[in-house]
Formats: sequence, C-alpha cells, structure tokens
Amino acid sequence: MSGSIFGKNLKISTWGESHGPALGVVIDGFPAGMELSESTIQEYLDRRKPGTSSVTTPRKEDDKVEILSGVFEGKTTGTPISLMIRNTSQKSGDYSQIASYYRPGHADFGFDSKYGFRDYRGGGRSSGRETIGRVAAGALCCTLLKKMGIELTAYTKSIGPVSIDPDKFDPSVIRENPVCMPDADAAQKAFDYIQKCREEQDSVGGVIECRIKGVPAGIGDPVFDKLDASMAKALMSIGAVKAVEVGDGVLVSTYKGSEDNDGFTSENGKIVTTTNHSGGIMGGISNGSEIVLRCHVKPTPSISKEQATVKQDGSPIDVVIGGRHDPVVVPRAVVVVECMAAVTLLDAMISNMSSRAEYITDFYKSKK
Amino acid sequence: MSGSIFGKNLKISTWGESHGPALGVVIDGFPAGMELSESTIQEYLDRRKPGTSSVTTPRKEDDKVEILSGVFEGKTTGTPISLMIRNTSQKSGDYSQIASYYRPGHADFGFDSKYGFRDYRGGGRSSGRETIGRVAAGALCCTLLKKMGIELTAYTKSIGPVSIDPDKFDPSVIRENPVCMPDADAAQKAFDYIQKCREEQDSVGGVIECRIKGVPAGIGDPVFDKLDASMAKALMSIGAVKAVEVGDGVLVSTYKGSEDNDGFTSENGKIVTTTNHSGGIMGGISNGSEIVLRCHVKPTPSISKEQATVKQDGSPIDVVIGGRHDPVVVPRAVVVVECMAAVTLLDAMISNMSSRAEYITDFYKSKK
Amino acid sequence: MSGSIFGKNLKISTWGESHGPALGVVIDGFPAGMELSESTIQEYLDRRKPGTSSVTTPRKEDDKVEILSGVFEGKTTGTPISLMIRNTSQKSGDYSQIASYYRPGHADFGFDSKYGFRDYRGGGRSSGRETIGRVAAGALCCTLLKKMGIELTAYTKSIGPVSIDPDKFDPSVIRENPVCMPDADAAQKAFDYIQKCREEQDSVGGVIECRIKGVPAGIGDPVFDKLDASMAKALMSIGAVKAVEVGDGVLVSTYKGSEDNDGFTSENGKIVTTTNHSGGIMGGISNGSEIVLRCHVKPTPSISKEQATVKQDGSPIDVVIGGRHDPVVVPRAVVVVECMAAVTLLDAMISNMSSRAEYITDFYKSKK
Amino acid sequence: MSGSIFGKNLKISTWGESHGPALGVVIDGFPAGMELSESTIQEYLDRRKPGTSSVTTPRKEDDKVEILSGVFEGKTTGTPISLMIRNTSQKSGDYSQIASYYRPGHADFGFDSKYGFRDYRGGGRSSGRETIGRVAAGALCCTLLKKMGIELTAYTKSIGPVSIDPDKFDPSVIRENPVCMPDADAAQKAFDYIQKCREEQDSVGGVIECRIKGVPAGIGDPVFDKLDASMAKALMSIGAVKAVEVGDGVLVSTYKGSEDNDGFTSENGKIVTTTNHSGGIMGGISNGSEIVLRCHVKPTPSISKEQATVKQDGSPIDVVIGGRHDPVVVPRAVVVVECMAAVTLLDAMISNMSSRAEYITDFYKSKK
Repeated sequence: MSGSIFGKNLKISTWGESHGPALGVVIDGFPAGMELSESTIQEYLDRRKPGTSSVTTPRKEDDKVEILSGVFEGKTTGTPISLMIRNTSQKSGDYSQIASYYRPGHADFGFDSKYGFRDYRGGGRSSGRETIGRVAAGALCCTLLKKMGIELTAYTKSIGPVSIDPDKFDPSVIRENPVCMPDADAAQKAFDYIQKCREEQDSVGGVIECRIKGVPAGIGDPVFDKLDASMAKALMSIGAVKAVEVGDGVLVSTYKGSEDNDGFTSENGKIVTTTNHSGGIMGGISNGSEIVLRCHVKPTPSISKEQATVKQDGSPIDVVIGGRHDPVVVPRAVVVVECMAAVTLLDAMISNMSSRAEYITDFYKSKK
Repeated sequence: MSGSIFGKNLKISTWGESHGPALGVVIDGFPAGMELSESTIQEYLDRRKPGTSSVTTPRKEDDKVEILSGVFEGKTTGTPISLMIRNTSQKSGDYSQIASYYRPGHADFGFDSKYGFRDYRGGGRSSGRETIGRVAAGALCCTLLKKMGIELTAYTKSIGPVSIDPDKFDPSVIRENPVCMPDADAAQKAFDYIQKCREEQDSVGGVIECRIKGVPAGIGDPVFDKLDASMAKALMSIGAVKAVEVGDGVLVSTYKGSEDNDGFTSENGKIVTTTNHSGGIMGGISNGSEIVLRCHVKPTPSISKEQATVKQDGSPIDVVIGGRHDPVVVPRAVVVVECMAAVTLLDAMISNMSSRAEYITDFYKSKK
Repeated sequence: MSGSIFGKNLKISTWGESHGPALGVVIDGFPAGMELSESTIQEYLDRRKPGTSSVTTPRKEDDKVEILSGVFEGKTTGTPISLMIRNTSQKSGDYSQIASYYRPGHADFGFDSKYGFRDYRGGGRSSGRETIGRVAAGALCCTLLKKMGIELTAYTKSIGPVSIDPDKFDPSVIRENPVCMPDADAAQKAFDYIQKCREEQDSVGGVIECRIKGVPAGIGDPVFDKLDASMAKALMSIGAVKAVEVGDGVLVSTYKGSEDNDGFTSENGKIVTTTNHSGGIMGGISNGSEIVLRCHVKPTPSISKEQATVKQDGSPIDVVIGGRHDPVVVPRAVVVVECMAAVTLLDAMISNMSSRAEYITDFYKSKK
Repeated sequence: MSGSIFGKNLKISTWGESHGPALGVVIDGFPAGMELSESTIQEYLDRRKPGTSSVTTPRKEDDKVEILSGVFEGKTTGTPISLMIRNTSQKSGDYSQIASYYRPGHADFGFDSKYGFRDYRGGGRSSGRETIGRVAAGALCCTLLKKMGIELTAYTKSIGPVSIDPDKFDPSVIRENPVCMPDADAAQKAFDYIQKCREEQDSVGGVIECRIKGVPAGIGDPVFDKLDASMAKALMSIGAVKAVEVGDGVLVSTYKGSEDNDGFTSENGKIVTTTNHSGGIMGGISNGSEIVLRCHVKPTPSISKEQATVKQDGSPIDVVIGGRHDPVVVPRAVVVVECMAAVTLLDAMISNMSSRAEYITDFYKSKK
C-alpha cells in the first residue's frame, strides 16, 4: 500500500533513497500560471543542505534541483511538476556491517519486519535525505502563499536544555546562525552545547516552532481533515518528530476554561481574537490569528558512543555507528517543518474555495 | 471539499449534528465474516454516553445504535456497514442568543467564516456528539483487533494538576471511576478538583494516554503514512485535542541520543527492544513493543463564568454560556481516543498485508 | 478495501441492501448555503421508484427520503448530508432456495468467492436498489448545476431492436411514457416489445443516452481524471452497464481523421466547435459543446424461463427465477445515469476552480 | 486539483510532456522483494516506441528507462519506484504557428480554457508520449501477475474497416506485424489500408481488445470500484479512446436475458461459466472466466489534409498539421491498454486480500 503521497487537492509524491541515484518529488495539482525557476526551489533546498557548519554532517551534497516537467516558458502549466535531485556523494563505503545488525533508535528492524529486507545504505528511504522532495514541493507552496500575503516562519525554539528567550525574539537572525534560532545569544549557547555533546560522542534533540501570519479565517475541513489534524500528520511524518503541539499545546491540559478560552473583539472592523492560546485554530478551522505549531525532535539516533543491540539473527553485538552524521537534526529540519506546513496549508486553502454554493456559482458566472 | 472521511483501506464516514435528527457512520471496507451485534457496539457507545456521573453533562441520551446495513445473519458482509444513533434529547431551547455571538474558545467564528452561517444548536457538527460515529466504528475495529491478540487501553493520565501515580497503575479500575483513571486515589482527587472548578463556574483539561499491546512489528507505511503520523491525525482530529505525543513525546527534545535510543535484544527467540522511549514506533513503523500515545485535551470552552466576546456584527458582548455542559471532556473522550487508535491501527495492518510480493503471490496460490 | 465511495472533492458514500432495514448515502463535501428540502430529492427518487408501470417490478416501495444531517433551516451546511430511505416492502419470502445456487448472469458467485457468503435476499448489495443512494446524491448535484445553467437530460435511446427516431426527438415526452423515450412512437413500440418478451418469460436490454448542455470549457483533470474517464467509471459502475461511449463512441474506430475531427469556429465572440463527434470532450477536457454519453444496459438477468446452473457445491440444477422482477431495467436506470453524470460533473467543476494560480489568489483577495 | 495519479493501493503518478526534458512515473505501493531490472521495463517500452515501422511516426526516440529509486540489489524495496525516460528527439522546430491556433480534434482549446495557456510543443502533456509512464508502471504489474499465472494479451481487433477473422486468431503473430493483429492476413490488409489513408493525408482509427486469463473469482470492490468500472476509467483515460466495452459490450443492449445470461457448471471440481457474454465480470466482480475488454480508438487528429479552425482570438484559419505524426495510434496503444489493465487488476487483487476477516486474522497468525 502506498504511503509516500501527501495531500488532498495538491498531492506530493516523494521518492528516493539516501544512497540511490537520485531523490525527488512529483507535485500534482499545483495551479497553472505561477512563475517558477529552479533558483526559487534551490533557495529552500540550500537551507537544508548538509555540510554548511560544524554541527551538520560533513557529507557534501550540492542538492541541485532539476525541473523535469510541469513548467513551460518559466511558468507552471497545471500538470505534474517533477523535480529531481541527484545524489553525488553517496559513498556507500562499507555498509555491509550495518546491514547485519539493527541500529538502536533506527527504523532498520521495522523495515526488515515489513519488507523482508532493506536498503541499508545510509538508512535508504528512512534517511533524512527523504525530506528533500518535501522541501522542493514546499518551496512552490511557500511562493504561492507569499503572493497572498501569507508568511511562514519556522525556527529552532530549543536545543536540549537551551531555549530561546522570547524577549530577544528576532526573526532576522534565524538564517544567520547555524542552529536557526531567532535569538543570537541562545544560538551561541546551543551551538556550544551541541559541540560538547558531539565530543562526548552523543547527539541532541530540540524543538522547532512554526508561525504562520496572514491566514484567513475559515481554513480547514471538519471533522477529520481539520487544519490542525492535517498539520499534525504532516509534521509527525517528519522522521525524528515525536510530538506535535498547536498553540499552547501540552499546557492546555493544566488550564481552566477561563484561562484557555480565546475571546473575540473587533479591530478596524475585523473580528479578531483577544488572546491566542488556540494557536490560530479553533475546532479545526483557522480563526485569522497567527497559527502556531511546534514539533519535538528526538536526538539523532546515530552516535559513535558504543551501544548494545542485536544482529539480524538475534545474537547480541556492541556497535559504534561510524559515518558522517549530524549531531543534531533540528537546524536542518527547520525548513522541512516550514515546507510541510506550507503544503498542508495551501492544500486546505484550495479545499476551502468550494465550501459555499455561491463560491462555485459565482466562479462559473464570472467565467462566462 | 469533503473532510468527514477517515482511512485508507478501511474508510469511516461520519455524519450528524448535536441537535439534528440523528448521528452515525458508514464503515466501508470492513472485512466480511466477523460476528457483530448491536450490543458489541453499544458497549463502546455507553462508555462515552452523557449523564453517567456528576462530572458529565446532565443531558440524557440513550445513544442507542441501529445497524442499517452490512450485517447479515449476525455477520459482517464486506459491504458498507451503516450505523445510526437517533438524538432524543435535543432540547434546542433558546439557542437564538448563542446564534448571535461567537462563543470564546469555540468553532463558531470559524464555521461562519467558512460556510457563511452555522447550525448553532449545541455546536452543530463541531459538537462533541460528532464523536459518536467514531466510537461506533471503533467498536468494530477493536473487536477484530482483539481476535488477533491486540488490546487497546486508553485512560485518563491527568486532570488539571492531578496525575496518576505510575506505581499505583491498575487498569482494572479505569471503568470503575467517573474520571477513567487507572489509579483510584488519583481518580478521587481529580473528581474533587473537577467539582471545585465547576462550582467556580469553570472547566478543566487533562491528558489521555492510550497503550496498545500485541501489535506485530512492521505496521505503518513510510513516509507520510507512518503509523505515528496517521495516529497524530486521528487523535488531533478529536475536538479538544491540542497536542499529540508518541512514546516519550515532548521529553525527547531534551534527551541525548544515548538516553533516547532503544536498543534491541533477543527474548525467547524474538527480537525486542530493551527500552521503549520510542513508544513502539521507530521511523514510523511498529517495532513490536507496546505502542504509547498521548493527547492533551483542553478544558471545555463552555463555562458559566462571564466572558467578553463579540456579536456577529463585531459589537462587544459579555456572555454566560448556559445549557448542559461537561465541566471536563476528558473522561468521555477516553473511549474516543481508544476507538480512533483502533481504526488507524487496523487500517495500517490491512495495508501491510501487501507489503511483500510473496504475500500477494502466496495469498492467491492458497486460494487456488 | 472500501469500494462504495465515489468522487474526489465531493464524495458520496452509499450503503444498503435490497432487503435490509434501509438504504442511503452520505454526501461529504457538498457546499454550504444551497436550499434543499426532501421534496427536491423525492422528485428524483420517484423517477426510479418501482411499481409505476407494467414494465417495472410490481414491488411497492415509497422510497421516501429522510434528511438526517447536513441541512439546517432549509439550507445545506457544508457538513455531511446523510440521506436514508427505509425499505418497507422487503418480503424476504422464501429466498432459501436462491441461497443455495448461483443465478445465471448475477453477481452471486462473485460475492461468495470474494466474501465467503452473501446476503442472498434480493441480491443484497448487488441489487438495483443500491442505486437509490446514487439518485439521492445526484438530485443535489443536479439542483446546483441548474443554478449554473447546466441541464442534464438522460433518456432511453433504444430497447432491444427498437430505437428512437432522431427526427422525432422530443424531450418533453421522456417522462410521459413508461420507457422514458424522447419519441412517443418508438416508446409505444418499445413498450410492446417488452411486454412480448415478458410473456415469453424473458427480459430485454437497451441503451441510455445522457446529454449535458451548458458545461463551460475546461472541465476535467488530465491525465487519469479526464472528464470522460471519470464519466466512464461512474456509468460502468451502474449494475447492468457493459459498455460506455462518449460522443460518436464505437463509430470512431471506423472513421478517418478528416471525418472525426471537430474543427472550431467563432460564434458571437465565443469559440465553439463546428461539429460534435467528440461529444463535448477532447483530450479529457470539456470544450463547451454539448456533452454526449451513452451506456449499453444488459437485459435483467432474472427471468422466469428455465435455466441451467449449479448449486454452491457444484452440482447441476435447473432454475426458474421467481419473484418480482423488472423485465427491463433501462427505464428506471435513466435517472441513475443522469444522477451519476451530475455527481461526476460537479466534482470535476469543483476541481477546476483551482486550476490557475490566479484563481486562488483572486479568491482570497476578494475575501479580505 | 491533481489528476495524474491512478490507483487505490498501488498508486502510479505519471509526469512529463512531449517536448520537456523527460517523462516518467512514480509507483507507490508496489510490494517488496520482486526481482526487477531495467530490461524488464524496457521490453514493454520498446513495444510502444515510435519509429519502428512506416505506420508509426518517424520521430526517433530510444525511450530508455532509468530506475531512480525503489530497487536495491535487483529487488523492489516496497518504497516508491521512480522511473525516468529522457526525451532525446524533441525537435521543437517551429511550433510557434501551432501555438496560435486550435488544432481540430485536439485538446488545445481545452487546455487553454482550463489553464490559461498551454505547452504547445507536440501537445505537451496531452501528447501520446504521456503514456510512457503508464507502460513503465504496467511492466512491473504484468511481471508480478505472471508469477500468479495471469497473462494479459492485448491486440488490434480492427483498423478502420479491416477486422481480424476470429477463426484465424493466432496470438503468436501479434508482435510480428506492425499493426499488432493476431491474424497475419488481416494485418497485411490493415497495413495497406493505413498506407492508403496516409497517402490521402488522412489517419485512421481502430479497436483494441485485451484478454486476461487466470484471474481468480472474487476480484473487484462493489459498488463504485467494480472491476469493470475501474477498467473503464483506466482505458477511457488513454488519450484517443472514446468507448469501452466489457465482454459482449454494446451487443448486450439488443440481447434478451436468455441470450445474455452466463450459466454455471462444474469442471474438474471448479465452478465455471458455460458461456462468457459477461467478459469474466459479473456485478463488478471477476467470476474466474477470461476477462475481455475492448476500447475504440479514434483516428489520429493530426492530419496533413487542410482543415478549417480558429486562432486563439477566434479568427478563422485553414491549417495543415505538419510534423511527425502516426497515421494511426492503435498499434502503439496496444501495449498501453495491456499495461493499464494490468495496473488496474493488480490493484484490485491487492484490495481483495482484506475482503474477509479471516484473511486478516490468518495473515497475522502466520506471521507470529
């Protein structure tokens, strides 16, 4: 059964393995007429590119995108957009050892149980490189959303014990530090923390937050395709994410109704909420306030510290995972979160265009 | 665009409003030949029925299920199973006032923004009564899962500040206290806390946990239909849920790799994990360990305490939400969580049956 | 695996068996704000109702529809519309005999092979009564399409050897003769032919044509969800249909390009085709011309003439199918064809609303 | 809205334009463990390759497939299989003229109406080259079906007025004549007919039939996803197809029940039909008999004969379509029909694996 297609109206179909010839995505249902060049996509891919700082894997990949279809004379045509990124640095090296045992914290055992064998080179399809297709697709969605005044901003909220200081929140520094924090001081501390952990042959986790400004009220389809439910799936499907929060998230379980409820007021003739505990989504539908999403990312499971596990035959083995690993996946996953949120939002916005009978009749009247 | 259908192989299509004539679900893709009677479904519906204690709404509903199709001579036929539950106590009373303003913390404004108007009686489709169809469908899935030795146990983990004591964990008491906690002492404290908040005209939130034993390794379809991603959508789609965690959840962001990684060992010839930080799911695929899911549920937004909000025209109004409300939705949502997890799991298990070419060829060879 | 859900944006989920308690449909994704009453739907259901003439089954069913959800104060709400029709005349009589053998031309053997057993009462889910849900859903779609100036007209084109005379085509008589032909003379001949065949204990087939006026150019999603491909599925899924044609259909295989090609011309400033061999669909996309679809319907398989077949154990048996059967299903299937075409078309028209980036950006600009 | 994805369990997502850099397909849901090499796929692609005889376009394309993902050590991995075929001979030449008018019989006007503009080079996405992805995906499905003893045989049944003689039916000659007929004499006549029409600057249509042997009874999901309904969509979605028949197809409308009904008998302990008017599908479910499908293919719309049409601004123009065109698309479409039937059948067979509760419970018991 298929599992690599995401979306309702706008469907993205990603493919590719860490050490195969290439990775990519087919985007089906993207509207016609939007200007698109490879450089727009490249900008997003570069944000998740490895080898850009000492806290990412030293694996060198250009992650250069090629548009194979769906764009003509610089514009999207409405037909499937196929994007491919060749792997250039897939040193399969000696993976024969990894092939024989189940790495702690990895999907190896799950893949073998499911499929009978696995592409063990760099994790195959379960590698973080899988997200390349997501980012490429997200770049298109972000571009279209921007045209409607919608801006997504994802960033690192914390790395291990180091959190950003809300009072020092400065989005302009997010792309200027290797950990993607909107707080330069915290970024330095986080960087140091990662370095220390890496020296201890260990890895670290963290929290990514995504804020979306400018979303109109009314987006999201009750009851299963609520905007937050779709976002939860989109974000939880990112490899290392183990928890997803919307708005005040886990805190709401300790609140009283009078503390949690967002009331409404009128501002310049527009109805807006007075607070935003709900993170811009109430009953699964956007309310016009800023949308706030958060994912909790686990530490990279690949560490050089010795760990006990088993071989495929069940016999015990102590392993040291060598190779080129990120000591933390959080900074590189920031753009993945932003892109998945963009795909999900644009898809829901397209759905909403047919929510009223008059929208449909007016549309076709105007086309006559 | 549709939004009330959930599932890939097994599709549940729920319908109905709080104060309409009835609510229900159509289950399409449920396999043939399973014994099914209304009493099996009724048992689950009774667990979410209102009016069973002083901490639920006093609204009296029998929530009696009627099987309209898909069952013949006591067995499922493989064709759509239509289940209907009539509303019997829908005192629409005077909802005309509610109709005119936007209740804080509710979906009212979102529905109006999206659809141009709303069924304001008891929240219409955004009411918690919408989950009746989910529970009815879940009852069937739980029944089939049990035949494969798979047991789901959902319970209240905390209510406001009152958490269960892991050392006193006793699943046998879950259905014997009105807050559905597996710890009788905590249950009493939680009950008292809810009563106190209700006297203060307020409401409370809490945490629901669901544990699933007996799931084979290999369930879940990479990369978007990961088992945890599908579970996240299933659970976040439940009305008041604002965060979903898998395994150690939000804690993983503070872990180091050496603390978070689950290693493997061999037990009676079976490969199992030594720890279970991952909550039974690694890389989106089950690993045979107990699956652990958690949702954070917000306090009931309907409270009698006065709150400031606006009318539909934007003019301010102070409101007191009257009517029959639950001071906490957590206890009644426990079975909803269990049922949504069951639907999601069974669906993923069906998917997995075609994951290997030999499974398909062997199946058809055996049928010749 | 589910199979009773149809549609992309607008999903209809039908359920029910010939002799179960009820049949119905859930329509998910129908837009909000359209006026809808039970009488609108009833009008369509009455067109397929049994017992209205001597060439239909004498089974008496009121086929009275009940709206269970999705309509509030006389308008659709945008949430699932659940429609139910109770079976009132399901005399199961003595079906025990039918249960024991495989009726020629029927789905009995297929159902047993697939599901291990079957609801043998009146064909269960494979009964023509299954189409009730389709008609109920189609009634809504036809109503909305009419508001956009789109009219669907289905009729009987031939019954056995009796075809309508194109020169006598008069749509006003379609609903005034029991065989639904737009030609009163042919209708009489067809009626006589059916009567004769029935006296011979036999049944007859025929052709249904559906014409759709007013469809704008541009509807249909290349390449698999072409408008004609979706129509083909919609129509072939109707029980007795064995062939589907678009435009000149089977004739095109004998044409030369110069005979088949529809050229374009300009009429009142609008580009239109000069001929319509293509039936209004070229390359899977509507071109603004009248859409022409045709289905070939097989004779009712239930006949009183003696036939040879086998029991479930493979032993031979000669059978005479008793009970209340239509000697021809064509006239009652006319409205089913019209309704399935309407569902398919409206669904495709919703899809088309997001075909251009500017449609999306303009829509949201206008909502600000 | 997306339209280039086909299938339920097994999803194929095709992409690419006639004159873009490449075309391809992503196959998601194909099971793991099947041996696969590029040569297997190439064999199918070669059957639709242009330039192989004087009755196909002289455009020279190697149509060389590259496997980009989903295969490891010669076996499918269960994850998406991405296949790419580079365009090498896309002489865009001077398409600027074609860009300015609407070719008779082509999708040009539909594309412009829908998307606002079109990739006019060689028809863009509406080109017959789009089917490359279908054939590549079908090659995999045929291979797996063969392992279960299922053989698909598609062939040309007629070209214009020239039909095969059923008495001379010889499948061994299908691939040995340029028109793919299973009758060498008819093939020669058809070839001559095509040549004659081409000299007259015209093109011709024809009929393709596909027979499938070895399909077990029970395949197909009532009521919308009937096997014949899914096949009808699959085949009608092929560019030039205007009618689809199952079994006796259009003839059934003239039959009486006693002529059309297939009875059952017992053969070597197996229940089989005595006749096969139904084409192996009754009530949408396979009955174990040979499946028989037929499509009617229109003549190539591109002809050098002068035709009247309009420019984009509506002004009249007489056009002569130059370029490299097939005088008939039937022979090259034969393998496309075979491949689409294979994709549809395998998809339905996967669905059927979960049709009974015992299939699911037995599967998981056997895995313990």
